[in-house]
Amino acid sequence: MPNTQVTLVQIDNYGPWTVTPEPRREVDLQTLQSRLYADLSQQFGSRGGYVFFTRFDNMIAVTNGIDESVHRQVQTSIRNRYPVTTSFGIGVDPSPAVALEAATEAIQDAGSAQDAERREVLSGSILDESADDDLTIAHFDVNDATERLTDRLDAFATFAHIERGYAELMAHFYEAHEGLAFFVGGDNVIAVCPDLDRAAFEETIAHVDEAAGVDLKVGVGGGATAESAGMAAKHALERCRENGHDVDIDDSAQ
Amino acid sequence: MPNTQVTLVQIDNYGPWTVTPEPRREVDLQTLQSRLYADLSQQFGSRGGYVFFTRFDNMIAVTNGIDESVHRQVQTSIRNRYPVTTSFGIGVDPSPAVALEAATEAIQDAGSAQDAERREVLSGSILDESADDDLTIAHFDVNDATERLTDRLDAFATFAHIERGYAELMAHFYEAHEGLAFFVGGDNVIAVCPDLDRAAFEETIAHVDEAAGVDLKVGVGGGATAESAGMAAKHALERCRENGHDVDIDDSAQ
Amino acid sequence: MPNTQVTLVQIDNYGPWTVTPEPRREVDLQTLQSRLYADLSQQFGSRGGYVFFTRFDNMIAVTNGIDESVHRQVQTSIRNRYPVTTSFGIGVDPSPAVALEAATEAIQDAGSAQDAERREVLSGSILDESADDDLTIAHFDVNDATERLTDRLDAFATFAHIERGYAELMAHFYEAHEGLAFFVGGDNVIAVCPDLDRAAFEETIAHVDEAAGVDLKVGVGGGATAESAGMAAKHALERCRENGHDVDIDDSAQ
Amino acid sequence: MPNTQVTLVQIDNYGPWTVTPEPRREVDLQTLQSRLYADLSQQFGSRGGYVFFTRFDNMIAVTNGIDESVHRQVQTSIRNRYPVTTSFGIGVDPSPAVALEAATEAIQDAGSAQDAERREVLSGSILDESADDDLTIAHFDVNDATERLTDRLDAFATFAHIERGYAELMAHFYEAHEGLAFFVGGDNVIAVCPDLDRAAFEETIAHVDEAAGVDLKVGVGGGATAESAGMAAKHALERCRENGHDVDIDDSAQ
Repeated sequence: MPNTQVTLVQIDNYGPWTVTPEPRREVDLQTLQSRLYADLSQQFGSRGGYVFFTRFDNMIAVTNGIDESVHRQVQTSIRNRYPVTTSFGIGVDPSPAVALEAATEAIQDAGSAQDAERREVLSGSILDESADDDLTIAHFDVNDATERLTDRLDAFATFAHIERGYAELMAHFYEAHEGLAFFVGGDNVIAVCPDLDRAAFEETIAHVDEAAGVDLKVGVGGGATAESAGMAAKHALERCRENGHDVDIDDSAQ
Repeated sequence: MPNTQVTLVQIDNYGPWTVTPEPRREVDLQTLQSRLYADLSQQFGSRGGYVFFTRFDNMIAVTNGIDESVHRQVQTSIRNRYPVTTSFGIGVDPSPAVALEAATEAIQDAGSAQDAERREVLSGSILDESADDDLTIAHFDVNDATERLTDRLDAFATFAHIERGYAELMAHFYEAHEGLAFFVGGDNVIAVCPDLDRAAFEETIAHVDEAAGVDLKVGVGGGATAESAGMAAKHALERCRENGHDVDIDDSAQ
Repeated sequence: MPNTQVTLVQIDNYGPWTVTPEPRREVDLQTLQSRLYADLSQQFGSRGGYVFFTRFDNMIAVTNGIDESVHRQVQTSIRNRYPVTTSFGIGVDPSPAVALEAATEAIQDAGSAQDAERREVLSGSILDESADDDLTIAHFDVNDATERLTDRLDAFATFAHIERGYAELMAHFYEAHEGLAFFVGGDNVIAVCPDLDRAAFEETIAHVDEAAGVDLKVGVGGGATAESAGMAAKHALERCRENGHDVDIDDSAQ
Repeated sequence: MPNTQVTLVQIDNYGPWTVTPEPRREVDLQTLQSRLYADLSQQFGSRGGYVFFTRFDNMIAVTNGIDESVHRQVQTSIRNRYPVTTSFGIGVDPSPAVALEAATEAIQDAGSAQDAERREVLSGSILDESADDDLTIAHFDVNDATERLTDRLDAFATFAHIERGYAELMAHFYEAHEGLAFFVGGDNVIAVCPDLDRAAFEETIAHVDEAAGVDLKVGVGGGATAESAGMAAKHALERCRENGHDVDIDDSAQ
């Protein structure tokens, strides 16, 4: 039975900080954001979690198997090494969308993201360790991306077009299937999913093709952690590449 | 007279590398990509350049004032510290879209992004130092983003919706105005622009509102480097916040 | 009963790599080394381990509580993100000196550090998890260091002098007491220790004072991991600062 | 005529910060220090400078060719991305020892390193750009280091022994020759030198051999920046390796 633990990571009072006392150099903000993301990826990742950069000031992590004390250690480590602090809200639900709502509520109960007094919130629920839960990861990519996205003079136009496909995928997968999909670079989107059948993935691919003209394929995997489910999804996607299928659901996800 | 120097940064043969001999851990790829981006930001940024992460395997930099020897030094530094190499194509034109096409052509002349033999290309044209060129940067953000994007339970749905706005902005600004717009985190989009008047920015904001229901404002600045133009744009955006205007064009951009 | 697990981290074939095909830029080597060290610190540190930079091409970690699968994951993560690979030898013994010898032997059995064919060795013994072992950390610093080391015009001369004290401490603590001492920045030296009584620490401080004219104090702590023992040692050192003692042994180390 | 510009980098009020409100996790301090060092290396290094980690809370940079505005930019970039700030003192003299004293004096005039009110000092003198000055770098290493330091069971004992050699080299080269020598990892020491003849290097090597039993060789190079002089020194050291000489002085240093 899939059950997803989602951690919402929010930089405390970040917007105001970036323009106080006057706007900070953009290059430093970009470096700060991307290194903070890299650090969180390594810290949650060393325990099987996935972190998605999303908006950078708000990041979303899939943290099945990671307890509160590790969350606290990560939070302390950020405070010790960055000029900003972070708040973490944690939620658990078979539906990733509902888990994210719970995580968001946990953080918001302590105040606004731009409340200067709200610092280092850590609240919400953690998965029961004794339960034998797992989670499902889907790994999407664009068919023939290098030919269409990279090796062409109008690559930017194509990319802007495909961005519409990602936005459509993200919105549709959330609204129709309660899954959370994230662009992760290249032509790749990774999604954390509730219990979905093959038809749901086929419907999603068809919808994005119709609405935005972007042609996707997807590998789906399951596991006790984001890493194990995600690796199974990658192998499933490799099988799609080999055999030309649009959807490959690994046994681990069934 | 605006004249933009654009550098296309491409990780050589990255797609195949990520799955050879079998798919690599996603968390390591995410860390590699975001740290490589942070390093490029610092390296070009220390000389006034801006780098945008775009797709991470392909990044786009605005490099006015940065010569070929610095490009070569950055390329060598990456090779000395990462398991991958990078190719750089450089283009110059009053139209950023045309400059990017020239940069893309410079790189493609040496082979496909997935050609295992193509490594560390460095080609294209550099701005003439003696010319008194400058460039224009526009900094967009979403009105009332924290209220709408962050402090709400359905923040993900709102974000997915706003992603459509960014994709629309990116595509429209390229097609209608030959500018290159990039999401840079939070609710911010930064664009490098040709010579545009106020009406072009007003039209862009109106178009995104109509097509995607996302309400933007923009500050515009000019300067000899991306950093100086970008900082002027940030100050112009602060003035928008203070006085409620949708478009503020700094004197430096006129 | 103290029992220390030591991991010797060796960059494979590093010396030859730094000069192939010709000497690489020193600044890139320095950046590579220090970031690799920072990453290892975070990766072992997130599980309670300590890593010491030592010579950077050879680093020594105290890894009580960290199993082989985590070592393998760290090794893979390095390979995925750096242009070099690493070998790990692991040893366990009540005497840290003997544990390091065992770790060294484990790695050397597979070949020389400059054997181009030797890559990603991972061998040696891991502490038995069921055993209730702990380890002891001593944290030394120099009395009145800021006054003597920093706020003086001849700070370099004083520092060179104190370096002799560190070298003396390192050599003596190893030879006389089978402990491993490491400079960690500022005026701090951290040592991993066998079962030693107060007299051994007093003797060590007296020896360094006599041989090199450097006046030290030390806090000593115990715990199941380097982090818990090290934190107890820091608190013990704070007590030295407060009460003027030269040696403070926390209850956890007794 | 050699003329060296030295920048002393001091983390403001670092000692107290590391124990406020209670001692911070050692692993985070190690990561903070080594990443800060890596960043400074890249930032000064992209303009030809060398940074030495020294004690990490105090670092010493050779910054010929780097003006005050770049120093200020680096300082701002650190403040924007780290939880600590830095002060820079800059000194210039044909004697590196005297240049460091001037740099130290520039910083100390503004207060103690542990003065909580002293932040982001930037003072001192910059090399006159129009002068045609250069500087000299010497690159030392230990003969047969891998055999003696790495591929042996008692490598730690040997290393502790060799540390004495480095401390001796550092102290002697400063006192006898007014040069600044720094351990940079592996078996390497890099020194910035005044105008010295071959006999001075031969005397230094003989002294370290006699006083500490450590057998060194050295390559010496000159150039307008630390990087160019340092690269010439590396090539000279390679020639020592090839032809068995103890001292090789490149034409650039004469």
